[in-house]
Order: sequence, then C-alpha cells, then structure tokens
Amino acid sequence: MGKGLTSRADDYSAWYNEIVEKAGMAEHSGVKGCMVIKPYGFAIWENMKEILDGMFKATGHQNAYFPLFVPKSLFEAEEKNAEGFAKECAVVTHYRLKNDPENAGKLMVDPEARLEEELVVRPTSEAIIWNTYRKWIQSHRDLPLLINQWANVVRWEMRTRLFLRTAEFLWQEGHTAHATKDEAIEETEKMLEVYADFVENFMAIPVVKGIKTESERFAGAEETYCIEALMQDGKALQAGTSHFLGQNFAKAFDVKFADSTGKQEHVWATSWGVSTRLMGALIMTHSDDEGLIVPPNIAPLHVAIVPIYKEEDQLNAIKERFQPIMEELRENGISVKFDDDDQKRPGWKFSEYEMKGIPVRVAIGQRDLDQGCAEVARRDTKEKASVQLENLCEYISKLLGEIQTNLFERAKNFRSENTHEVNSFEEFKEVLNYKGGFISAHWDGTTETEEKIQELTKASIRCIPYKAKEESGHCILTGKPSTKRVLFAKAY
Amino acid sequence: MGKGLTSRADDYSAWYNEIVEKAGMAEHSGVKGCMVIKPYGFAIWENMKEILDGMFKATGHQNAYFPLFVPKSLFEAEEKNAEGFAKECAVVTHYRLKNDPENAGKLMVDPEARLEEELVVRPTSEAIIWNTYRKWIQSHRDLPLLINQWANVVRWEMRTRLFLRTAEFLWQEGHTAHATKDEAIEETEKMLEVYADFVENFMAIPVVKGIKTESERFAGAEETYCIEALMQDGKALQAGTSHFLGQNFAKAFDVKFADSTGKQEHVWATSWGVSTRLMGALIMTHSDDEGLIVPPNIAPLHVAIVPIYKEEDQLNAIKERFQPIMEELRENGISVKFDDDDQKRPGWKFSEYEMKGIPVRVAIGQRDLDQGCAEVARRDTKEKASVQLENLCEYISKLLGEIQTNLFERAKNFRSENTHEVNSFEEFKEVLNYKGGFISAHWDGTTETEEKIQELTKASIRCIPYKAKEESGHCILTGKPSTKRVLFAKAY
Repeated sequence: MGKGLTSRADDYSAWYNEIVEKAGMAEHSGVKGCMVIKPYGFAIWENMKEILDGMFKATGHQNAYFPLFVPKSLFEAEEKNAEGFAKECAVVTHYRLKNDPENAGKLMVDPEARLEEELVVRPTSEAIIWNTYRKWIQSHRDLPLLINQWANVVRWEMRTRLFLRTAEFLWQEGHTAHATKDEAIEETEKMLEVYADFVENFMAIPVVKGIKTESERFAGAEETYCIEALMQDGKALQAGTSHFLGQNFAKAFDVKFADSTGKQEHVWATSWGVSTRLMGALIMTHSDDEGLIVPPNIAPLHVAIVPIYKEEDQLNAIKERFQPIMEELRENGISVKFDDDDQKRPGWKFSEYEMKGIPVRVAIGQRDLDQGCAEVARRDTKEKASVQLENLCEYISKLLGEIQTNLFERAKNFRSENTHEVNSFEEFKEVLNYKGGFISAHWDGTTETEEKIQELTKASIRCIPYKAKEESGHCILTGKPSTKRVLFAKAY
Repeated sequence: MGKGLTSRADDYSAWYNEIVEKAGMAEHSGVKGCMVIKPYGFAIWENMKEILDGMFKATGHQNAYFPLFVPKSLFEAEEKNAEGFAKECAVVTHYRLKNDPENAGKLMVDPEARLEEELVVRPTSEAIIWNTYRKWIQSHRDLPLLINQWANVVRWEMRTRLFLRTAEFLWQEGHTAHATKDEAIEETEKMLEVYADFVENFMAIPVVKGIKTESERFAGAEETYCIEALMQDGKALQAGTSHFLGQNFAKAFDVKFADSTGKQEHVWATSWGVSTRLMGALIMTHSDDEGLIVPPNIAPLHVAIVPIYKEEDQLNAIKERFQPIMEELRENGISVKFDDDDQKRPGWKFSEYEMKGIPVRVAIGQRDLDQGCAEVARRDTKEKASVQLENLCEYISKLLGEIQTNLFERAKNFRSENTHEVNSFEEFKEVLNYKGGFISAHWDGTTETEEKIQELTKASIRCIPYKAKEESGHCILTGKPSTKRVLFAKAY
C-alpha cells in the first residue's frame, strides 16, 4: 500500500519528505524556511515535551520565559557567541507599517518608525538571559540558578528541510548558573544523561554520548557534550547538546556573586537544548517504506480499532463488545480510537494507520466477533495475531512494551552493523562511500586535520565518545600518534 | 509586614507593580517593552495553560504550530485586519549581521542581506493560518477544522505595563473553519463559555459575558464576543475574546470547500484567544496589601509548612511527624512544601508566603507538636486555626475548597457593589468619578455617541451583556430611544 510512498532504497530524501507530509507531521509554510507543524506531528512533540519537562523538573529546574528579541548591543556582548550566530540572524529594524501611497490597499514599512537599536530575533538566549541573571544573582545563596525555557528560535537558513533545518524551530534551552566550575560541569553532564535517557528510553533511539571537538563546539562554550544518533541512511544526527560555558557569559555580562567569605566571583554557566529536530531523528530511525513508526512511549495514539462490517447491526454489536475493552485500555494508560468513519474503507484505514505509525491496529469483523477474538497487528514487525477478546487488554499492554523494546533493539543492531573501526585513510574513504555509518578511527587531535578530512570526505567528527578507551594508534590522515578513537560520520 | 508594599489606597499602580516584582511574577527586560516571566509567575501560567488546554481538547480542538513571521503580502490580504494591526508591527527586514568595519568588536546589519519581502512578526495569526487552511480544506469532509496554537505574539507598545500591555506576550489563539454560518457562530459562543468557565471556576474571577460594539470589535471580525472582569480599582479588564469572522478571511485567502452537492462555498471562520494578560487580572482581582492571593485551583503551591524550632532535634521531630501528612496531602493532589531553610527566620517566611499568595500556611513549633496540633492560616481572610494533626489533611483539603469559593464570592460581591445603573449623563459622570466600576446605562447604538462619551469621560462600552434585558429607555448622552442597557467602564 503505502499510498505510493517512495522507498528508502529508491530515494531516501524523497521518502523522508513524503512521510513528513503524508503522516500529517509538518509542511512548508508560506514563509520561506518556516514550517507548519501539523496536529499529528504536534501531538507527538507535545508528548515529548511533557516527558522532558517532567525530567527537568525532577532534576530541580524551573521554567521561565525570556524575550524573543535581543538588542544588538546585548547580542554582541559575548563575542564568540555573537560571531557564531551573526550570519544567520533575522533582524527587526522597524516597528510600524503604513499605507503605501503608491499602491492602494498595500502596506509599506514606515521609514519614520525605525528602531534606534536593531533587535535580533533570538537564535539562542544566552545573551538576554545572562543580562537578566546579573540582577538575579548577588550571593552564593542565589546559586545554583536552574532555569529552563520552552521557546521558538530563529536561525536563518537558505536550504531548509522540515524538522531538520528550518529558519524557525521550537526547542527548550536550559540556562544554569553555579558557584563552582565543578558544579557547572556536573550539571552539563547530568543534563546530557537526561537527554540520553529520554532519547533512548522514550524515543527508542540509541545514542552515543560524547564530547565535541573544538571546531564543532557551541559558539561561546568551553566544552560541548552531545548525544549522536545514526539514521537509516548511514548519516549521523546530533540529537542534543549540553554546554559548559565556563565564565564566558558571566564575564561578558558582569554576573558576579559574593561567596561565603564575601569575595566577589564570576559565576559558572551551562546551557543545554533539544529541539523539534528530534522529530526528524524519530522519523529517520524507525520508519519504513509504509510510513512512520512511533514508539509507544511517545505515541499520541496507541491503538486504532477498525471494525469491518456490512450492516449497521454488525457495527453496533462490535461497538458494544468493545466498549468495556476500550475502558480497560484507557484505565491502563493506553490511548485508543474506535474508527467507525463510514466514509472510508477498512483497507484505506489500515494504510492510514500504518502511515501514521500507530503502534497497534486491531481489526474485527462479524466472524471474529462470533469467535470472541480480534486480529491484532503490530506496526513495527507487521506481525498479526488472533487474540481472544477477554485477553485483549493484557495482550496489547504487553505488546506495547515489546514494540518499545524491539524498536530500540532494532535501531541498536542497525547501529552496531553500521559502526566500523578503520585504520587507514583508504579504508576510511572506502567504508564511508560503500557503507556509511559511524566510523571509529584515530585522529591526531588537531583542527587542521579534522578540517582536511571533512574537506576530502564530507565526514566530520561527531564526537569523542565517553566510552572511547585508551588505545595507542596513528591518525588516519597524518599518521601522527593518537591515544583514542573518535567517531566520524557524514551528518545532518 | 508586606515587605513595605505600597497600599492600594495610597497608589494602586505602584501596588500592582510591586506585587508583580516582589511575588516573583515578572520583570521588565533589557528589551524595551518586553517582559521576563519569572519562575513563580510562569508556574502559575503553566497551570492555567494546562487547564485551558484540557478544555480545548475536551471540546474537540487540536494543537498545531504556525510560523512566527507573516510575509507582508499575506499580512495585508485581509484589509481590515491589516489596517488594525499595521501601526504596531515589528518588522524583520534583514537576515544577517556583519562586523562593523568602523567599530571593532561591534556588529551591524548587513545591507546586502535585505529581504526581498519584509516579514511581520505575528501580532495575531489569522493571515498565516488562513493561507495554510487553503491547502487543508477542499471538501465539507475537511470541516469543521478545529485548531489551537500556543504562541508568542508581538504588538508594538510604547507605554507598557507588566502582563497588561507588553510588546511581546504569550497567548493561545484558536482558529476554526466551518461549513455554515450557524456552526461558526455556535463555535464562537461555545469558546466564550469555555473562557468564562475557566476564568470563573479556576481563576475565581467573575465575568460578564457579552458582545463588543462595532468600534471595539477585533479587526476583521463580524462580531466579537468577550468576557469582562472588574478590577479592584474600579476599572474593567477584557479577559478573553471570541470572534465570529464570517467569510472575511476565507474570501481574502480564497478558502473554499465543496459541499455535499459539489458546490464550491467559502468557509466560515472563528478565532479566539486569551493571553498572559490574565495574570494581570488575577493580581488585580484577588490581591491585598500584603501581596498576591492565588486561587487554589491554579496555585503551583497550596501549602507551605513552616517549622519553628531552636534545636536540630526539634526540627527532626517535626519533620518526621509531617512526613506521612505530606504524603497524604500529595495523594490528594495538594502540593506542599516543608520549608526548613535555616538561613531564614519564620517571620520572614510568613511574609514571603503571604507575598506569593500561597493559599494555606501551616506553622508548627515544639509546643504544638507536644499537643499534636498545628496552626493553619488561610491567605484569603488571614484567619488562623489550631488543627489536630490527625485531621490536618482533611481540614486543608476542605479549606482549599472554601478559599476558592470565598475568593470568587468576594470578587462577585465587589462587582455587585461596584455596578451601578444610571439614567442621565450627569449621574454617569458622577458615578464614574466618585465610584468607578461598571456602569449600566442606555445608549443610542451609534459609534458617534460611543466615541463622544469616551472622549468626554474616558469610559468605553465594555460590552452589550448577554443578560441585558429588553427595557425601553433613553440614551444618556443624546436622549434617543434605546431598548437595552450596555456596560460602560474605564478599562485597562
């Protein structure tokens, strides 16, 4: 079926775009580079958001909201950060439109309403937040300050892809302030663990935890920690980052605290974020040629029940029998929809639920009802089973757990099969061209070599994995000595 | 105590600003006209948002997300809407900054990165959404389309007040499309009922439901329904609006559907919204000279427990005794904090919890513990009672319900006492000057008279109440015949 979805083998990029569209996830808008997140896509994002938000609160963070606009003078205060984002900033210069005297019914920017100081639409909020923290932090008693914000941000992009790269996207950004360097580093690492926990245990996407090289670091950070996932086309996707900002922003915005002896010190900072980009990771990790597959732990709808009937009487009998079953499912936290839309045929519904990646589909006709059973199909493996109605809730409850585990294991196996150790540049290029995936290789630790490799192969260093063990070797490009392997890949 | 809060009688406006600041609700930011919503204020907003969101979903609406930017050509498509908002639009004209060659370390707008078409930062999203709906709606089967969005919007303001009037604010905007006029009007009215239900039963703010006069209508609407609340200074505050948009946006954006006979028709529209402005209504309805008062149904924290002790042993004994009580409270959905911060004195804590409007405060010292009781203070009336510990959970649970009811009744009584029927313009001016509040009076139904009254008195027609009964009378200004009274007030 698949409503004519292009297969991954034929055209991976078209396949991705079609899933995003046909599953009702998102679409391009009338504004260049900006997307519309459609109801079904947004419902998945809402679930993700709610789970993450709970995890942030459980680790002591509070939400707040800071302005969309950053005055240019604040924006440029932390130089590296400003330099990193300056080239992709949407800038507000005027605050009024007026009637265009030369075009009846049209408007024009009112040249008399020019702002004294231009406003940058936030590409990230360190500047505006640290300008605020200066007022909030005086004493060591004000620390740690653990704040998160859910917001939209804008980074101008010429070539956009839905969820993966758009001018506006939704995200959360945590911004914390600490009395000591150690405590800030601990926070940076803790939030990376929270991200890894969420992405692995809820999104069922295995990740490699590691540290970015200097050239891939967040602009203004001392160290960037990241989780990296592998997509089905063998390209990597950065799924979340957590930054140790040192005292850079505290110095740029003059944020000091009095320690217990009264001495004034600059505070230590972190910031960390994940975005709607995770929706892209979700699609590209689990989906198949029939459509999206949503892990049960973040699915807005777990079970779609499709009655197959000829007469109204048959439908009513099925409906009546399912009433207590649906109640039981809902009591167990399982969301369920009974689809009695008579404008659509069962076959159409089957492929629609496949396209949307609903974890479990139940089909039931008159004969099933007579026999007291129903057909249960799982979306991940497409296996079907005939299940007694009295066991249905228990069966589905268990099945959802199995699907969650299976999706994670499947993705983990895929990653294992597509992670290769190589020991020469020839081998590196060969694996990259014929297999793709993560390549674990020695590197001499210089930005120069890193850039040269990227220039020659388009692969970049995704991270220096936490787990990289000490091992003496030689850089694949320069042959210089190296003490551990890093992870390369072409990346989104 | 009140940490030196200015009293309402002395300076109402200063009182408001100080509560917003001292209760940790919000503050002005480094960006002119934009606010920072602080953690405690945001926690209240999150609760409000969650409740409203549940109500929207229960009435069949889904969330989605649309772009922040509206290209000028889309913005100007619905002329009345464009005209209504043109004077307060933040406009993005460039997409890049570059190093300022004349100022080392400074940035400037890159003149080469001028957008071909300017982008308006959304002041409201009808234009961008209806441009999208054109693609989503073809047949009567696509209707009704019931979508809501939680978002930030920008309406440039020169004179701002925290929560009440800021350039950027947070809100939700529902945008629905229907096959018939009647259905759209029904939706408009239904959502006004949802707002009234929420504001009265959760925020404990009584509202008058009614319809706006033509001059107060939303730009682009055929009819604007509203709920109006009365603040403690006798000024009215519009707490929510629901608009019947007719076919204006469908025509401007050419959104048609095929009815069951295949005939092409323009669809009928509504939009409706409430914003962080409600936070202002919350403060100005319930608070007193000691600080904020938060109704239990939206309070992030219901109960603050303050132990009073000299020795660590005493604290531990109190803590131990309260462990099961706190568990019981939490099991009953009551949020509770045991404040054992030894850096602050009990008196300081008492006034802090008063300032933040925590509904119930429990104080307990060694003697209370020995007697198996605690002192329970309710924030609304400041009454205190000594309560046996074994009854504490039940007592507090009941008390929270009483506080919720009392706040609503108190505000309703205030409104009754401050709503006056007048029958002449002299009386109108006198009541307005000496008493303020809602004034119920006859009006001849013309915009001219309405404007004249506003010019002369600064009072505007807040709404034509649903409940206004047929009654023949004469316009207070012109003496022309009138069939019902409308509600006047000075307004925020």
